[in-house]
Amino acid sequence: MNSYLKQALIEAKEGIQKQEGGPFGAVIVYNNKIIAAAHNEVLVNHDPTAHAEINAIRKASAILKTHDLKDCVIYSTCEPCPMCLAAIIWANIKTVYYGCSKKDASLIGFRDEDIYEYLKGHKKMVDLKQIDYEECLKVMQEYQNKQGKIY
Amino acid sequence: MNSYLKQALIEAKEGIQKQEGGPFGAVIVYNNKIIAAAHNEVLVNHDPTAHAEINAIRKASAILKTHDLKDCVIYSTCEPCPMCLAAIIWANIKTVYYGCSKKDASLIGFRDEDIYEYLKGHKKMVDLKQIDYEECLKVMQEYQNKQGKIY
Repeated sequence: MNSYLKQALIEAKEGIQKQEGGPFGAVIVYNNKIIAAAHNEVLVNHDPTAHAEINAIRKASAILKTHDLKDCVIYSTCEPCPMCLAAIIWANIKTVYYGCSKKDASLIGFRDEDIYEYLKGHKKMVDLKQIDYEECLKVMQEYQNKQGKIY
Repeated sequence: MNSYLKQALIEAKEGIQKQEGGPFGAVIVYNNKIIAAAHNEVLVNHDPTAHAEINAIRKASAILKTHDLKDCVIYSTCEPCPMCLAAIIWANIKTVYYGCSKKDASLIGFRDEDIYEYLKGHKKMVDLKQIDYEECLKVMQEYQNKQGKIY
């Protein structure tokens, strides 16, 4: 099998063995080298965002000292959930290799497919209520008018 | 204005003033008290996942020592991006109050709307390639068969 994905699987197995979270691992590759490897740590870290891909992105960004991972590729043992997929886009990663599908994740009890359906407008999961628009917009406009913004 | 969202705005302003990231702030409320307040730290932390809502969720989870924030409400100065919205769902938060819309975020240069369109299947942003399915599925099944899984 692919040697990078194999390392991601080793991470997933480590997570299972230590009971640190769901059975998911990911690695990030830069210049043909793995620069970050991680597994799901939702349980051990008390952190619902600590999915394998998020953890790997955070490690890789820290190592490269930039939030822009445009020259990186990510390998994940499972198709990224919407949180991780959006994180991959924010990180400017263009290519994702994955093993299991979101359907497989659902079959073992994870809500990946539900969240995808929700984001397509096919399911209700969260109440979103807009308030205090004017006050919030003012601060955004302040930012927009500010010189030297670099994001 | 709403006193919780006001605190989120104070966070956003702090982030702008310190140039730590985009102009976004969020707070998490539990038992009518703010237990976590955060702003976007993508730039200062070299972390593309360090949006205000993600940072607030990570802080609140650490404080409550659980990944399950089902009794919390989140207030954000802007409608959450898909990464943050999915994180909110993973955290079991049921209600989100927000000020600006994703359209406002797009108008100042952020890709929130594009990512929403991508997740609806209307836009191409990332190459997703499935490989080594059998090997990865085996590890998921291992997890499923394991006694005592608690996620």
